Amino acid sequence: MVMENNSVSPMPELAPIAEFDKTPPTPPDDTVPMDDLPPPPNTVVNVQEEKEKEAAAEAKEHRHYEEENEWGCGSWLEYTLVVVCASILLLGSLALTLFWVIQYQHGFAWREDPRKEFNLHPVLMVAGFITFSGFSILLYRICRCCRRIYVKLLHTVFHALAIPCVAVGFLAVLDSHNLENPPIKNFYSLHSWIGLVTMGLFAIQFIVGFFSFLVLLCCEGATAGFRAALVPIHASFGLTTFMLAIAAALTGLQEKVWFSLRDTYSATAWPEEGIIINSLGMVLVALGILVSFAVRSPTLKGHTKLTVTDRL
Amino acid sequence: MVMENNSVSPMPELAPIAEFDKTPPTPPDDTVPMDDLPPPPNTVVNVQEEKEKEAAAEAKEHRHYEEENEWGCGSWLEYTLVVVCASILLLGSLALTLFWVIQYQHGFAWREDPRKEFNLHPVLMVAGFITFSGFSILLYRICRCCRRIYVKLLHTVFHALAIPCVAVGFLAVLDSHNLENPPIKNFYSLHSWIGLVTMGLFAIQFIVGFFSFLVLLCCEGATAGFRAALVPIHASFGLTTFMLAIAAALTGLQEKVWFSLRDTYSATAWPEEGIIINSLGMVLVALGILVSFAVRSPTLKGHTKLTVTDRL
Repeated sequence: MVMENNSVSPMPELAPIAEFDKTPPTPPDDTVPMDDLPPPPNTVVNVQEEKEKEAAAEAKEHRHYEEENEWGCGSWLEYTLVVVCASILLLGSLALTLFWVIQYQHGFAWREDPRKEFNLHPVLMVAGFITFSGFSILLYRICRCCRRIYVKLLHTVFHALAIPCVAVGFLAVLDSHNLENPPIKNFYSLHSWIGLVTMGLFAIQFIVGFFSFLVLLCCEGATAGFRAALVPIHASFGLTTFMLAIAAALTGLQEKVWFSLRDTYSATAWPEEGIIINSLGMVLVALGILVSFAVRSPTLKGHTKLTVTDRL
Repeated sequence: MVMENNSVSPMPELAPIAEFDKTPPTPPDDTVPMDDLPPPPNTVVNVQEEKEKEAAAEAKEHRHYEEENEWGCGSWLEYTLVVVCASILLLGSLALTLFWVIQYQHGFAWREDPRKEFNLHPVLMVAGFITFSGFSILLYRICRCCRRIYVKLLHTVFHALAIPCVAVGFLAVLDSHNLENPPIKNFYSLHSWIGLVTMGLFAIQFIVGFFSFLVLLCCEGATAGFRAALVPIHASFGLTTFMLAIAAALTGLQEKVWFSLRDTYSATAWPEEGIIINSLGMVLVALGILVSFAVRSPTLKGHTKLTVTDRL
C-alpha cells in the first residue's frame, strides 16, 4: 500500500521525464516495506481489524498525498506574489529603461548619431540579461503544470532570445565609441570589465547547459550521473550570472548618469533624469532580491519532495 | 543494527546541539527497521549464517560511515581552494582599498580635511560589509571541526565587528559631505540608495538572527520549529545582503573614479588609479562568485547529510 502511494503522483505528467527526480536510492535491504514481509507468526487475522487497517491505510494515503502536494493558502499567496511582482519588475525594468532613453536621451539611431546608437546598449542589455534571463530562471523554478522537457525547452528559448539582444547591444556600444570624434576608448571602465565577465559566464552557461541538459539526453541513461552532478553547478552559476548582470547594469547606470548629468547630479535640486536612473537601479536591486528568494524558497518549487538543486 | 549506525556519527561533537540537523521525520509506521520485526516464521537460524550476516552488517556500517563522511581527495582540494582563495580575496579587497586610499587619495583625517575624512568611508565599508561579513558567512558554511554553538557565536562576533565599521564609515561620508564648501548633497546617487537598502537588510538580518538563533535558544524545545523555518530565509537574505554590499561597493567605486579622475578615466592612456579601482572591483566580483559557490556547494558543508538551508 505504501509503495502504491508513490505512483499516485500529484503531477503525473511530470513523471516520465523527471530524470533528476531521484532521491538517493536506499539499499533495498535496509528498509523493506511492511507489505512485502510475511505476517508476524502470532497475528490473528480478524475481518474487523483488517477493515480498520484498510481505513487507516486509506487515511494515511490521503495524508501522504497532502504532504507531497503541500500547497496551502500561504504557499499560493507566496507563489502568486512572487510571480506577479517578478513579472512586474522584469517588464518594468525594460519599460523604465525605454522611457529613460526615449524621454531623456533622444531615442535610437544606427551609425548616424553615435549618441543615439549608444542608447541601444542599455535597452538591449536590460532586455537580454535581465528581462529574458530573469523570466527564463523564474519559469524553470516556478512552472508547476508542464512536463519537464517543455520547461527545459522554454528555459533554453528564453536564454536563446537573450543572445541576439546581448550581441547587438555589445556591438552598439563598441560602434558608438568608435564613431565618436575623438573615439572613446573601449574596456577602460569597471562597468565594461564586469560586463565582459558576465558575457563570458553567460556564454559558458548556455553552451554547457545546452549540450549537457538537451543534447546529452540522446543517451539519457549513460549521462544521467554526469547531468545530475552538473545541476547544482549550473543552477549556482546561473544565479551568479544574473547577479553579475545586475551589478553590470548598476555600474553602467552609475557611469552613464555622470556622463549625462555631470555635476548637476550632486547639486541641490534633484534632477528628474537622476531620479529615473536611480529608480531603475532600485528596480534591478529589487529583482536581485526577489529572484534570489524565489530560486531558494522551498515552497515555490514545483515538486515539494525535491531540493532546489535536484529540481534544476 | 541499522538504527545503531545512525549513532555512529562521524562528527559526534556536532550532535548534542545540532538542533536543525533534522531530516523530515518519516512516520514510524511507514517503514520499520528489520531488526524491530519478529523473524519470518519459516526462517532457520543457523550460526554460520548469523556470523555472515553480522560481517555483512559491519561492512554495511563501514560503507554507511564512508558515505556520511564522503570527504575524498577532490573534496579536500575544493575545500582548501575555497578557503585559501576566499581568505586571499577577503583580505586582498581590504588591502587593495587601503593601498588605493593611502597611495592615491592622500590617506585619512577626521574633520580637518573633508576629502581625507571621506577616505574612511570606502575602507570601513569594505572592512565591515565585505571582509568581516564575508568571513562570517564562510566560516559558518565551512567550519567542520567545531561545535555548532561556537560556530554560531563566531558568526555573530564577526557580524558584530562589522557594525562599528559600517556605522563610522556611514558617519564619515555624511560628515565629509557636510563639511565641504559648498556642502555636497546626501543620498542623491544610486550608490547611496543601494547602500541604504544594504544597511537596512544587514540590520534586520542581525537583529532577527541574534534573537532567533541565540536568544530563543533559552527555550530551545518550544522555538525549534520557528527557528528551523527561519533558517532558509536567514541564509537566503544573508547571501543577498552580501551581494547587495558588493553591488553598493561597485557603484561606489564607479562613482568615485569619476569624481577623482573625470575625463582622464576614458582618455587614451590607462591611468594607474583607474586600473587599481577596476582591479578592486574585479576582486569584489570574484568574491561574489566564490562566496555564492561556497554557500551552495554540496561538498563543502560540514555534515554531508544536510542541505544548505538545513545547515545554515
